This record gives sequence, C-alpha cells and structure tokens, in this order.
Amino acid sequence: MTIRLPNGFRCAGIACGLKSDPQREDLSLFVADAPCVAAGVYTQNLVYAAPVGLDRQRTPSAEIRAVVVNSGNANACTGERGWQDAVTMTQQVAAAIGAREEEVLVMSTGVIGEFLAMDKIASGIAASAAQLGTDENHLLAAARGILTTDQGVKTASAEQPYHITGLAKGAGMIAPRMATMLAVIFTDAPLTPDTAQRVLAEAVETSFNAITVDGHMSTNDTVLLLSSGTAGNGPLEGAALAGFAQSLSETCETLAKQIPADGEGASHLMAIEVDGCESREAAHQIARTVADSALVKTAITGNDPNWGRIISAAGYARVPLDPHKLALEINGIPIYQAGAPTEFDAATVSRSMRDHFEVQIHLHLHAGACRARVWSSDLTCDYVRFNSEYHT
Amino acid sequence: MTIRLPNGFRCAGIACGLKSDPQREDLSLFVADAPCVAAGVYTQNLVYAAPVGLDRQRTPSAEIRAVVVNSGNANACTGERGWQDAVTMTQQVAAAIGAREEEVLVMSTGVIGEFLAMDKIASGIAASAAQLGTDENHLLAAARGILTTDQGVKTASAEQPYHITGLAKGAGMIAPRMATMLAVIFTDAPLTPDTAQRVLAEAVETSFNAITVDGHMSTNDTVLLLSSGTAGNGPLEGAALAGFAQSLSETCETLAKQIPADGEGASHLMAIEVDGCESREAAHQIARTVADSALVKTAITGNDPNWGRIISAAGYARVPLDPHKLALEINGIPIYQAGAPTEFDAATVSRSMRDHFEVQIHLHLHAGACRARVWSSDLTCDYVRFNSEYHT
Repeated sequence: MTIRLPNGFRCAGIACGLKSDPQREDLSLFVADAPCVAAGVYTQNLVYAAPVGLDRQRTPSAEIRAVVVNSGNANACTGERGWQDAVTMTQQVAAAIGAREEEVLVMSTGVIGEFLAMDKIASGIAASAAQLGTDENHLLAAARGILTTDQGVKTASAEQPYHITGLAKGAGMIAPRMATMLAVIFTDAPLTPDTAQRVLAEAVETSFNAITVDGHMSTNDTVLLLSSGTAGNGPLEGAALAGFAQSLSETCETLAKQIPADGEGASHLMAIEVDGCESREAAHQIARTVADSALVKTAITGNDPNWGRIISAAGYARVPLDPHKLALEINGIPIYQAGAPTEFDAATVSRSMRDHFEVQIHLHLHAGACRARVWSSDLTCDYVRFNSEYHT
Repeated sequence: MTIRLPNGFRCAGIACGLKSDPQREDLSLFVADAPCVAAGVYTQNLVYAAPVGLDRQRTPSAEIRAVVVNSGNANACTGERGWQDAVTMTQQVAAAIGAREEEVLVMSTGVIGEFLAMDKIASGIAASAAQLGTDENHLLAAARGILTTDQGVKTASAEQPYHITGLAKGAGMIAPRMATMLAVIFTDAPLTPDTAQRVLAEAVETSFNAITVDGHMSTNDTVLLLSSGTAGNGPLEGAALAGFAQSLSETCETLAKQIPADGEGASHLMAIEVDGCESREAAHQIARTVADSALVKTAITGNDPNWGRIISAAGYARVPLDPHKLALEINGIPIYQAGAPTEFDAATVSRSMRDHFEVQIHLHLHAGACRARVWSSDLTCDYVRFNSEYHT
C-alpha cells in the first residue's frame, strides 16, 4: 500500500549538508496549499530548544502555511542567536512560498549546543521549495529528512473516516546525542484550531507520552497536527469528531510504538500494561516506572522472566497498591498471583520472550477499573556502547 | 588502622551454605552484651521483605540484644511463610544468646521470591553464636557475611567524640538480582531510642538516601543504628548530641559512597552537587535526576564532557529553574554559564575525567541558598551483561 499526504499538502526532503553523510536527507519542507489548522504538543523540559519556543507561540492556529524541519542539529541551548536562527528559517520559508513568517512552523533535531549552519539551511530551504510534490517518493524523502540515528522511516496512516498521515523520528542519540522525538501528522479532516489542539493533546497522552527509551526527556520533543480541512464543509462535531479522534489516537499509537521499537540497540520492544487501578494516572505511573527500570530492561534483554524486578518496580512507583492483590503475566503466561509467585515453567516463558520482539508485561492491581499502557526499549550493550563513544 | 566494634558489642560471620560458593560467609551475627538502643530506617517500597516488616515493628527500641543478617536470599515476596521464617530466625538467635525474640532484629539480602533454607540458617545461627568475638578478624568476617555481588567489604568508623563503626553492602544484583542495600552502624554513645531514630533518619537523608546505582528501589533496604551507651552516663543532649550527629552523618556518608563506587560494572563514581536552590529537596531532586539519566551515565563512562545531557536532565527534574541562570562545572572546570556554553578545552576535561575515578558534576542554579549531593555509578556494558545474563 502506498502512503501519501492528505489532499491540500505537498512536501519535499533534501540533503543540504547538515549531516556528516552528504547523501542523507536532512531538511524537510511541508507546505499547505491554503492556510491550514495547526496544533502542537511540546516537551515539558524547562530547557527547551528555540524552535519549540517559537512553535509554542504560533499554535494553535488556523493560518499555518508550512513546517520546515532540519535534522543534524537541534538548535537547543543556543541562546538568543539560536532563537534568531529559528525565526530566520521561518522567514526564508515564508519568502519562498509567498506567506508571512508567523504562518510557518519549524522543528530541529540532532546535536545540542551548536549553532545552525545557516548558509546550508538557506540553500536547503530554497532547494526543497523548488521540489515540492505529493507522491510517495516525496513523502518518503521528507520522512527520511527528519531522522537522526533511526534505522528507518516511521510512518502511519488511516483512510477512514478521514485521511490521516503521520511521520515521526525516533529517540536516537547522536553526538552529543540528545534524544529528540519529532512527529508531524497531516489530515484533511475539517477542524477548528481549538478542536485540533484538544484531540491532539488527548491522542498524545496515550501514544507519544506513553513511550520511553531511557527516561531522558529531550529539549526538542514536538508533535504537530496539520489539518487542510479539504475533506468536508465546516468543522467536525459530535460523532464525526469522536470518530476522527479515535482514528487519530490509533495513528499516533502506531507511530509512537515505532520509536522504542527502534530505540538505540533495542533487542525487544517492551509493552507494559497495567490495569485494575483507581485512575489512569496511577496505572500510567506504575507502567512507566517498570518501563524505566534498568533492571527490568536488562532482564528482558536476557529473555529472563525475572518477575521480582517487575514487582519491586511497581512497589516503588509512588502509587498506592496492595501487594497482596498484585498479579503478573508475561506474554500471557501467569507468573505471579495474589502477591505470590505461581508455578510456571521458566524455560517456556524465556523461549516465548526470545521468540517475540514485542514482550508483553501485564500487571493487575485488582483495585479499580482504570488502565494504561507504556512501550519501552530494552537495554543492551549496544545502547551503552553507542552512547559512551567518545565524541569530543 | 584496625577497625573494631565499639565496646559492648561482639560479632561473627560464617559460611552456612546459602551462597553457591561454600567458602563465602553468608550469615553474620551481632550481639550486644546488654540491652541496647536501636533505630532503623527502611525501604519505602510498598513491596517490602519480611525482615523489613519485622524490624519496622521492633524499632526504635531500648531493648535490642542482637541482629542476624543472612546474604544469598532476600526473603522478599515470600508471603506468610517468609514472615514466619524471619520470626523463626529471631527465635533461634534469642535461644542461642539467652534473650527474647522481640529483642532480636533480622536482615536478609540476595535472591527474591525464594524460601530460605531454614536448616542451613539454623546451623549458621548456632555456629556464629559459638564464635562471637571483638577483634578485627571477627568484624571483617561479619562484614563479608552481608555481601552479595560486592567486590569487597564496606566499612567506616569514627573515634571522636564517640566510637562509631558501620558496615554496609552494595547494590549488587545477582540472579534474580534484586539490589538490596543493608547497613548496620554501632556506637558506644549513650542515646535514647527517640534520639537514635531522629539522628539516624537525618544522617540517612544525606548519605544512604543520596546514592543511586540504577534508580531501582529494593524490597530490603535497611539501615540500623545500635548504641550500647557504654561511653557515657545518661543520654546525649545539646552540643554533645550535635557533635555525635555530625560524626554519624560523616560515617554514613563515607559508607554510602562506597556503594555506587562498587556499583556493578562501574568505571566511575559520579558525585553530583547542586547548589543555589530554594530548598534542599529541589536540589536533591535535580541531582538525582541527573544521577539516574542513562545518557549522563554513559557520557561519564566515555569520559565525554557531554554537558547537553546534564543540562537537559536538570530541565526535566520537575523542579522550577531558570535556564538562563544555569551554570555547570565538571571536575572544577567551567563548562556552561548563564544558560550558555563557555569556551572550554574538551580534550582537557575528558583527560581529567579519565584520570579520576570520581567525577565531579557541579550545577549552580543561582536561585537560593540550599544545596544537595547525590552519588551514582556510571553505566557500562559490564552492567548490562551482568544483569541480562540468563538465569532461569
């Protein structure tokens, strides 16, 4: 199945020399044929990159014309000059496509603490504006242009009830290696800016905010939703809006899971589901605590059904729980019930873990009706090697 | 300098077969000549081991006669039978030394979720009770008897104004590898139970509660303070108590730092100091967030002055801070000032990191007068290998 942008959008991805490999795309441009609705969700890190600050000011909006993304340099911790560089990028795009600078958003990912090579950026913006297109090749080039240490492109799409296409980059860490998660999602569904902002925030909660590679929140995390509205007359409401929101959530989830699945050195995707909680927040907190434990991660790396690490991580999640009601399954096999280990064949569970890239960890609290899921990478020597290589 | 217990205490450490290597000590017994004051600080994990629950009931106290410690098995997640086994251990010690069971404390560390071999425990208690002594050899055998994957014994002592001697074990993780941190500290200073509890809790806050290897809180963490009071008449007060509390804090800090220094696979001890904060809690939270970041840890492993990882970790510590005031030094060399990188010679900083086992990370917030320190291990391939080895 081919993947393409919804009606109303064009894109390009080109190599302008920001990455050390001159063949690799490092600048992507997305242009709306007419002013479109845009919403954004951003990193909660108090140390945030210049493009995050700029986009935060400009969304939600009904007047966005373009998004420019560069990889290879995060434009983070770059002070006033970094801010000016981000503004300049939007001015250059505006000039190239005939828009105002406030109608352009910008994202950056890559090295932290270095200034952008603005001559390369300028030529990249000019070149990409001259190559805009709507076919799959254009989309895949643009998807590659936002990657850093990812092994491959990350895309997801839905056709019904509205066309949604999303692109993301993974939590790769290159020298000096700051994980930056970027995603941009396009739709033809007619939305108001406020509605776009609300449904995006909801979808992000159970997708992009439910993944972790190493628990290190980046300075650049950004998810944008752009809506051309070409698929209908007037903004969605009621059941139609609910249907769109559901489809958006599923698209976000599909995209988000690809990030820890491609986490640096990952040999397993861990899917941690916690149910039976009094609140979704409590379930999420427990799932995230398990997902971030280096001891749980390394057990999964070793295909080791080491339930003590999982149960003890749940116990320090700073959420009330009754240890005597806890139950655990790994890949559907009961391991722990009513606060005590059950009889299980460890070799069988280990084989199941070895045979599945995605390992399912399912914790039951038996204390309520709420649940949450978090996806995580495991922790391998390749991760350590990759991130301890000397770069200075 | 020889190390010995304060007056009023005897000890023994023997091998009773709990560890796979029959030569290694795995049971230690500490006996007070007369009822002594005891205080304890325990894991905050809601999933806590049986000995933690028992000691929590029995401290603070002025009637403690003995502490028995076994390694090789944590007696955690073992339900009602585990609780009964812990009680039985204290009954056996009480019978051997002529005390009541409520006058005996117990600690366990090692494998989680397995039942204790109570026949071996019983013979170990009998053997150790028959070998009690006060010299250095007895103390070192007892110090070895509480270890799991530690490379060596961890001790600390002070002579003035009162004699304090402490033993600890590190955050080693063996199959199924649950980090358990145990420490027991002896003194001859005269203390009431309430005072002992208060000064211990304060000392733990800036020592054992300020270390991390992998952020995984164990089911068994326990620190005990035992005071024979033989060095004075009547409990300490005022300046004498303050002097003792200061000496206790320094002893705890010396002991605590040995744990991440001997963290599994550690190639560096990271000392993270945060100052200029509005509260100690805020400083501690930032220091711990930096200490727990896998990206910061791997940078230190690589002797890489990768400041972006440190600054961004501070930014997501969920503590208010002004990014424009942040400053950072590594091993005393200024790296980042007023929210922007300074000129520094990366090769010089890297050499300094390579040449020092302890790497100093110093963050300044310039927003108040409070500070905190946290010590952490770095993260190496050896850690991952050790904890992902298949054990089932």
